[in-house]
Amino acid sequence: MTNPESAQQPTTDNDQLVTSEDQNHPANLIPSLCAKFWTLGWVTGTGGGCSIRDDDLVYIAPSGVQKELMKASDLYVLALSKQTDLKNRVYLRAPPCGKPSQCTPLFLAAFTKRGAGCCIHTHSHWAVLVTLILETRGPGSDKMFEINNIEQIKGFGRGFRKQGNLDFHDTLRIPVIENTSHEEDLTEFLEEAMDKYPDTYAVLVRRHGVYVWGDNVHKAKTTCESLDYLFQLAVEMKQLGIPWLSDIPKVKTASGR
Amino acid sequence: MTNPESAQQPTTDNDQLVTSEDQNHPANLIPSLCAKFWTLGWVTGTGGGCSIRDDDLVYIAPSGVQKELMKASDLYVLALSKQTDLKNRVYLRAPPCGKPSQCTPLFLAAFTKRGAGCCIHTHSHWAVLVTLILETRGPGSDKMFEINNIEQIKGFGRGFRKQGNLDFHDTLRIPVIENTSHEEDLTEFLEEAMDKYPDTYAVLVRRHGVYVWGDNVHKAKTTCESLDYLFQLAVEMKQLGIPWLSDIPKVKTASGR
Amino acid sequence: MTNPESAQQPTTDNDQLVTSEDQNHPANLIPSLCAKFWTLGWVTGTGGGCSIRDDDLVYIAPSGVQKELMKASDLYVLALSKQTDLKNRVYLRAPPCGKPSQCTPLFLAAFTKRGAGCCIHTHSHWAVLVTLILETRGPGSDKMFEINNIEQIKGFGRGFRKQGNLDFHDTLRIPVIENTSHEEDLTEFLEEAMDKYPDTYAVLVRRHGVYVWGDNVHKAKTTCESLDYLFQLAVEMKQLGIPWLSDIPKVKTASGR
Amino acid sequence: MTNPESAQQPTTDNDQLVTSEDQNHPANLIPSLCAKFWTLGWVTGTGGGCSIRDDDLVYIAPSGVQKELMKASDLYVLALSKQTDLKNRVYLRAPPCGKPSQCTPLFLAAFTKRGAGCCIHTHSHWAVLVTLILETRGPGSDKMFEINNIEQIKGFGRGFRKQGNLDFHDTLRIPVIENTSHEEDLTEFLEEAMDKYPDTYAVLVRRHGVYVWGDNVHKAKTTCESLDYLFQLAVEMKQLGIPWLSDIPKVKTASGR
Repeated sequence: MTNPESAQQPTTDNDQLVTSEDQNHPANLIPSLCAKFWTLGWVTGTGGGCSIRDDDLVYIAPSGVQKELMKASDLYVLALSKQTDLKNRVYLRAPPCGKPSQCTPLFLAAFTKRGAGCCIHTHSHWAVLVTLILETRGPGSDKMFEINNIEQIKGFGRGFRKQGNLDFHDTLRIPVIENTSHEEDLTEFLEEAMDKYPDTYAVLVRRHGVYVWGDNVHKAKTTCESLDYLFQLAVEMKQLGIPWLSDIPKVKTASGR
Repeated sequence: MTNPESAQQPTTDNDQLVTSEDQNHPANLIPSLCAKFWTLGWVTGTGGGCSIRDDDLVYIAPSGVQKELMKASDLYVLALSKQTDLKNRVYLRAPPCGKPSQCTPLFLAAFTKRGAGCCIHTHSHWAVLVTLILETRGPGSDKMFEINNIEQIKGFGRGFRKQGNLDFHDTLRIPVIENTSHEEDLTEFLEEAMDKYPDTYAVLVRRHGVYVWGDNVHKAKTTCESLDYLFQLAVEMKQLGIPWLSDIPKVKTASGR
Repeated sequence: MTNPESAQQPTTDNDQLVTSEDQNHPANLIPSLCAKFWTLGWVTGTGGGCSIRDDDLVYIAPSGVQKELMKASDLYVLALSKQTDLKNRVYLRAPPCGKPSQCTPLFLAAFTKRGAGCCIHTHSHWAVLVTLILETRGPGSDKMFEINNIEQIKGFGRGFRKQGNLDFHDTLRIPVIENTSHEEDLTEFLEEAMDKYPDTYAVLVRRHGVYVWGDNVHKAKTTCESLDYLFQLAVEMKQLGIPWLSDIPKVKTASGR
Repeated sequence: MTNPESAQQPTTDNDQLVTSEDQNHPANLIPSLCAKFWTLGWVTGTGGGCSIRDDDLVYIAPSGVQKELMKASDLYVLALSKQTDLKNRVYLRAPPCGKPSQCTPLFLAAFTKRGAGCCIHTHSHWAVLVTLILETRGPGSDKMFEINNIEQIKGFGRGFRKQGNLDFHDTLRIPVIENTSHEEDLTEFLEEAMDKYPDTYAVLVRRHGVYVWGDNVHKAKTTCESLDYLFQLAVEMKQLGIPWLSDIPKVKTASGR
């Protein structure tokens, strides 16, 4: 969304930071990912976004652009280690026009608190619907999305600095935080959720969308896809009266696993 | 839709008005936008359309074409300041065959009454379904779509000549006008709605679709996307028994905003 | 669907009939239309198809091909005036391998009985669902899809050899015929429906799909799109408890129309 | 899904096995099919996959890749006749990095037990929803998906080594097996289902997805499309309260068939 408050940051002339022939360079990946996400309905109407961290360099999509039309030259770049004053971020490179995304501090939280290499924010209506369905359970029961016994759960890592992925029978838990008028103000709640649920790779924002991260672009993107799949399935299960949590006994197999 | 009544307008040979190498030229933007809208299901079966105003020049898609196949050479161009007789519009440029769109006076209303730079008309079935759901509330309660406390609402400007965008907690209100047999006859009702709700950027047409405008192509298109997202969400909320209006308290944040 | 019974027709070497640089040549249009229809979910799993008539020449997609991969060289061509023996059709051109489509006699019925220039057959699940919903009304009430007061209805012509299009308030009526084990056997029922409802441009086949035709490719394709839009809307209206037929008074307009 | 247990197989330098200019070569078909399946939502988040057998050579997509980005050089190749030790498969060609898919033994079961030329595994949420709907019928009634009197059923072959396809009135039966924590452990249940229902071309995996195979790529792919169409229709029928099995009398036709 737009960010009318932020003053334009001083810009140095570092266009080489976003210029590369390599299609796997972060400056090229962000536009191609955002175009893909637009097609999936995740970043409709300039909502949502994506950021990639390459070592100390962070590449961020600007505020308020049409995500399917974004170009590498639209991107902001900053050095993670140089952000001493959170109220006054310093950019190594900024586009000639445009504004930094209000999502920036949320992306940075994933990078600094979880060592993530990529963070994706979607407005997927499946995510929003899941938070709305949870809300109908009443206060106190609306702050955690839980689902188990669905194969796609195996698309999630066990957690921060843990090896391996969740099992089919495991319960995937995604915390829900309340939405704020200013996206930047979500940061404290996102960080709180990260502290309280250190193993989660995603946080739902009520009536808003979801933040998903991963060690690298591949993991963040495939986790985000798996999660959106589960959100859609959860909404469809609700419509069919099928509960999200079930008690499915482990099948006995020849391997004995 | 087709416009059997309108006689073909006299054409001057102004093909240079729709000939440009610049993909951001209105004559190139309209076809690419319409192709995108076709993919989104907004302009199925020649329904819907799009017009762009560049200063005094107005570019309009013709009537009855397959929107995903439209070419720059299919477009009409007129000078807004020269339209003295609304019953007999004068075109600077017309395609060799084809008919002017019945949507023309509705697009012109957005340009003259709101200073819009772009106006989009869709037959999105989400828009139609929203008007049908409203209709079930009975006469008197069916003339306004209202939704609040959804992040995507922030995609809407505060209103005509106002700065900034709506807040998450604000209620987005889109008036609904009745449909007429002849699309041109909608003009008086559209203008009436613009007068009554000067800050709206869109008007729903019952059992028909929606007109959306903005200061420029970027704003009209992203507003239209945000609105369609909200219409879809509203239909899904209805199916899940979740009301469109809610009372969500403002969250207390560290910033105190 | 496949057509195991039909013996391969004798082939003359008339490849020039399907060879053209013109992308609007029927032999190029059919593959591009079928690829588009595949994306829309209309011709999934080799179901459905499309035929174009250019004067006396009829171009037909073969049986059992993946519709999004079809090439001009896959097509059959026949001369409409030369089909004296309906049990033994003569082709001017046939692909080296492949079988004629079982839809052929149904396409030919649209060409001979209605002078159509193009006929499209889809397995759209919206069409199938509409016939299933009608079925729940019981025998006698399940043989006609009717909807009125939806703008997209204006996408339909008034009927065979009639000028102009339906009005917003008009009731669109699409007859439903029963499905048969062999697609060719549908022909008698399709022709019967054409005789009984001479103004229809489409016939639904219960639990199967829809046949849609038009004077030319443009009309058949846009009519088919409008119809699929209405089928989808009808299913969604049913899910929301909104009836397909309504009594909407004509709005009084300044034009007095 | 990922396969953390499998050690990397020793690789010989057989890159020519996956190098071809022919777009119908299995090494080129698998990536193009997987990209198409990703668009259909069948292989979201690295789930699902595809394998092709060409005589004795088997081409397999690797584990855990983004399916829409897969390249021929990512593929594994093995000789079916050389797999004497099922716990220690020997690959003729392996990519420099990557892991064999856990689906491998399931694909091989289709090749060895049914002589299939192609096997597709999807996580289509329609497939998952069908197994969830069946589950609501209770134990004993949840192990078989059955539907009849839908045209698309004609997209299925009569069965292993049988000629011809199912009829419109025939009941399509797809067995459901229970899901296991490790995908490889599904093999015994898949093979059991193949033995019990020798004519099926697909097996549903509860809360997971579906395996579909065919004599060749064309048949496997179009069967998979037809089945997904039927799964989607079945879910929509359930939402509308329409049963999957019906008693539709055969229509009397002039041909007397």
